[in-house]
Amino acid sequence: MLETFENPAPQRDYEIVHRAHEFTSLCPVTGQPDFATLVVRYVPDALCVELKSLKLYLQGYRQEGVFYEALVNRILDDLVSALRPRRLEVEGAFRVRGGISSVVTARYPDDASQDG
Amino acid sequence: MLETFENPAPQRDYEIVHRAHEFTSLCPVTGQPDFATLVVRYVPDALCVELKSLKLYLQGYRQEGVFYEALVNRILDDLVSALRPRRLEVEGAFRVRGGISSVVTARYPDDASQDG
Amino acid sequence: MLETFENPAPQRDYEIVHRAHEFTSLCPVTGQPDFATLVVRYVPDALCVELKSLKLYLQGYRQEGVFYEALVNRILDDLVSALRPRRLEVEGAFRVRGGISSVVTARYPDDASQDG
Amino acid sequence: MLETFENPAPQRDYEIVHRAHEFTSLCPVTGQPDFATLVVRYVPDALCVELKSLKLYLQGYRQEGVFYEALVNRILDDLVSALRPRRLEVEGAFRVRGGISSVVTARYPDDASQDG
Amino acid sequence: MLETFENPAPQRDYEIVHRAHEFTSLCPVTGQPDFATLVVRYVPDALCVELKSLKLYLQGYRQEGVFYEALVNRILDDLVSALRPRRLEVEGAFRVRGGISSVVTARYPDDASQDG
Amino acid sequence: MLETFENPAPQRDYEIVHRAHEFTSLCPVTGQPDFATLVVRYVPDALCVELKSLKLYLQGYRQEGVFYEALVNRILDDLVSALRPRRLEVEGAFRVRGGISSVVTARYPDDASQDG
Amino acid sequence: MLETFENPAPQRDYEIVHRAHEFTSLCPVTGQPDFATLVVRYVPDALCVELKSLKLYLQGYRQEGVFYEALVNRILDDLVSALRPRRLEVEGAFRVRGGISSVVTARYPDDASQDG
Amino acid sequence: MLETFENPAPQRDYEIVHRAHEFTSLCPVTGQPDFATLVVRYVPDALCVELKSLKLYLQGYRQEGVFYEALVNRILDDLVSALRPRRLEVEGAFRVRGGISSVVTARYPDDASQDG
Amino acid sequence: MLETFENPAPQRDYEIVHRAHEFTSLCPVTGQPDFATLVVRYVPDALCVELKSLKLYLQGYRQEGVFYEALVNRILDDLVSALRPRRLEVEGAFRVRGGISSVVTARYPDDASQDG
Amino acid sequence: MLETFENPAPQRDYEIVHRAHEFTSLCPVTGQPDFATLVVRYVPDALCVELKSLKLYLQGYRQEGVFYEALVNRILDDLVSALRPRRLEVEGAFRVRGGISSVVTARYPDDASQDG
Repeated sequence: MLETFENPAPQRDYEIVHRAHEFTSLCPVTGQPDFATLVVRYVPDALCVELKSLKLYLQGYRQEGVFYEALVNRILDDLVSALRPRRLEVEGAFRVRGGISSVVTARYPDDASQDG
Repeated sequence: MLETFENPAPQRDYEIVHRAHEFTSLCPVTGQPDFATLVVRYVPDALCVELKSLKLYLQGYRQEGVFYEALVNRILDDLVSALRPRRLEVEGAFRVRGGISSVVTARYPDDASQDG
Repeated sequence: MLETFENPAPQRDYEIVHRAHEFTSLCPVTGQPDFATLVVRYVPDALCVELKSLKLYLQGYRQEGVFYEALVNRILDDLVSALRPRRLEVEGAFRVRGGISSVVTARYPDDASQDG
Repeated sequence: MLETFENPAPQRDYEIVHRAHEFTSLCPVTGQPDFATLVVRYVPDALCVELKSLKLYLQGYRQEGVFYEALVNRILDDLVSALRPRRLEVEGAFRVRGGISSVVTARYPDDASQDG
Repeated sequence: MLETFENPAPQRDYEIVHRAHEFTSLCPVTGQPDFATLVVRYVPDALCVELKSLKLYLQGYRQEGVFYEALVNRILDDLVSALRPRRLEVEGAFRVRGGISSVVTARYPDDASQDG
Repeated sequence: MLETFENPAPQRDYEIVHRAHEFTSLCPVTGQPDFATLVVRYVPDALCVELKSLKLYLQGYRQEGVFYEALVNRILDDLVSALRPRRLEVEGAFRVRGGISSVVTARYPDDASQDG
Repeated sequence: MLETFENPAPQRDYEIVHRAHEFTSLCPVTGQPDFATLVVRYVPDALCVELKSLKLYLQGYRQEGVFYEALVNRILDDLVSALRPRRLEVEGAFRVRGGISSVVTARYPDDASQDG
Repeated sequence: MLETFENPAPQRDYEIVHRAHEFTSLCPVTGQPDFATLVVRYVPDALCVELKSLKLYLQGYRQEGVFYEALVNRILDDLVSALRPRRLEVEGAFRVRGGISSVVTARYPDDASQDG
Repeated sequence: MLETFENPAPQRDYEIVHRAHEFTSLCPVTGQPDFATLVVRYVPDALCVELKSLKLYLQGYRQEGVFYEALVNRILDDLVSALRPRRLEVEGAFRVRGGISSVVTARYPDDASQDG
Repeated sequence: MLETFENPAPQRDYEIVHRAHEFTSLCPVTGQPDFATLVVRYVPDALCVELKSLKLYLQGYRQEGVFYEALVNRILDDLVSALRPRRLEVEGAFRVRGGISSVVTARYPDDASQDG
């Protein structure tokens, strides 16, 4: 689903940030909608993510029930698979629920993991 | 009282932030209400804190008299006991009293302590 | 409970606004805490409200279950009884619940009522 | 679907504002999601709208394709039918599409209409 | 060029605002680009402006040299011709040139004119 | 103490606003310092207030104990005596005390008074 | 010094606002520089002010000593002479001096004057 | 004058910030009042500063003439004497004087000094 | 096209930032306009970029179709060729498209490249 | 022209920041005025800069034509000569010209230079 195009400057480490202001999914427990700003920051290697396919990929969560922590890690895994980036980070900033707002941030590679 | 669920991505160091905008407790000297924003930042190990139980845990301080410094350290201890996280920080940002606003921040592990 | 003092300038219509940033009460259905900013705007006649007694009066709702609409109208009634003001308005701006924030505003006297 | 409760202060004209920050529907042409803040301002007569049922009513548009102008007028009609308010206004503030953000606002009663 | 669709609620006076954040034209004297936010506020009669055609219409000024005052009045005339609205206002807020920012606002109908 | 100079444009009604961001006085009950922004808005007749003398006049309250309501009305009276303005308004916006911020505003002339 | 061009839409009352963010003059007493934002709002009749000549006209005050009140009224007089507008307002918002910021606003025509 | 209480968590390095929004002293040259926000950040060792005594200590500068640089260093010395903290920083952010605002920040211990 | 002048302080490493708030180009796929803030940060060696020529160079993209990633890297290459700077960074912050805003940032020299 | 006074705490490294919000000079090419915020950050050694003399020194540029890059470096040199500080930084943030705002920042000592 995530489409890519060839990195126009692979000789260089540079950073791309896409900030999706209109993410929505469902709470897996209550079925109630959740809303977030989803941020993808990465340093491309051979491939960049095509912006429209990223939008459609994120819209794919609209009717899906998923916990914050699982959601951010799954999006990270999908993007890492599709792009094979030098570095990539996903941040989900979720709106207030019960007086509490939440931010979950995962990185590839990270200090503790073997996946880097 | 603090309930947990299994970390969906234990192979990775990633950060979770919960920001409770509506914390209130009592001043142990005057009995007057205190108001704060309470922030919990952590890197989970095997367990994540369940969001609703965190809300109820924080509401448990509504009628309790406790000093700022003791409060933040106690919440840190309770969360570390319940979650056994890789890292965890608690920040309490208290509203103006006598023209002075206060922020108290404690971390686990920290440089000076044996508890890390 | 609401204490008053003599208006130092009764020969003149002038406006006093008190904005209580730390109001909290309980939801009568769920028992969950509600948080609001409560604003009192009035033109005094013979009496002004004493600020500390206003603070204590508002703190009296801390453990009380009451709907937004009833709350604002009750505070309006209590202040009108205590102050006999020329004009008075109460506004309650309640924090987000289920993605919805609410503001309720009542005035004395108002166009439709007999109480003016 | 919209539930109501008895106005606790019908002797008085007072204003209630509910601001739903997380409204989403679909574009009837492209099927793409639209996002908006939906604001309901009204002066109740005999009835007030119950907040949770308002939330569920607005969530009912999540998978429905509807134009901005039709949407705001339909919500106005539904609320007027359910509440028979003294006055009511619906405002939809839609996020940027093609570099353009839009706000549609309808009122009951209005100057030109027979429905007041 | 400006396309329209049938007003879904012609029985009612209601307001539509479109705010184009990315307007650009050229200075007729220097040929340098000008940038503005263009706002269209109107009460429709039989017709509403279709959003995509409004976007394309405004993009039509990209390579055209025109003074602020003439531009806003011309857009007003074009929209009034296409929509025959009950009321319509165009506001152009132009970015700083030589330390001065400018806003030009024209309305239909207006007090002094015969065109109402 | 308040010095004046001749209005350079007495043939015209025009408005002057002075906003003193650093006002401080004492609470007459507790002796604790109060802090406010003091705003003076007026339409001059024959005289304008000299800015430095206004600053010194307001500094005169630094060690004086006075209630909010009395303070604003006294400053209004002093300025009206010194300037004999066509219209004059004094607004005092006092910082948070016990979680409550306050604004007191008095005008000359006002609807209810004989002093206009 | 103030140049004009022909109003492209004299059949209509419409508003033009020019906001000069970088105005500076001198204090006539101390010789110290004053800084302000100068705003000109007007409804043109036969003539509009040319933007570059307005900039140069305002720069003409850079080394001139003049009081706030006299300055705003003089600019108003000069613009009314040059433009013969239907309405015109000049606002000068001066930066903090001695902890006090000031705004002076004059209008043509005004209620009290013969010059309308 | 500065009172202390026992640190409730001496086993841990944690940070306490007190931000006094209403600090005022006098200029030693002109006698004119200065206004600042005074911030104290520290890591306690055996003792914490009692909040009310800190407020009274800072109020003690109200009628005292002292330069910005000397003031911040003197407050740092007094707090270090009273608390014997692991680390402590004092920041004074002074309001605009002659178009210039100033911030002075001193730390204990610091790189250059013997006092750490 | 990019003109330069001699660095007035080559004996020193210092930073120059130019922030172009009004950049626009075209989408190479749809032909629709894109809008961005383009930021150039650099440490000059022998040459500085002349500001007016930088403005004209950036305006050269107005009618050109180019992807975000290619655009930022091309501007970086052009500036590095013209200036031979010690360090240089280009950041393009593109406005929302399909609910997603994007920022692309490239640096010379960078860790991965041979061009430093 | 720059006057100094003895550092009251030479035993300690501490930071002083003066932020001049009202700097103006002339463009050496066009003669048009430039406006900037000029920030001086330093760690004093034996001497501090006297605030009023700093203000007068900066006012000395009011009628002088000088490029941004030369200006910031010249002010740095003058302050280093007068103060012999441990560290000093000058930042000039210039307002928009041709849609571009600029910031120039120089430091003493710096990595590349011999002057540290």
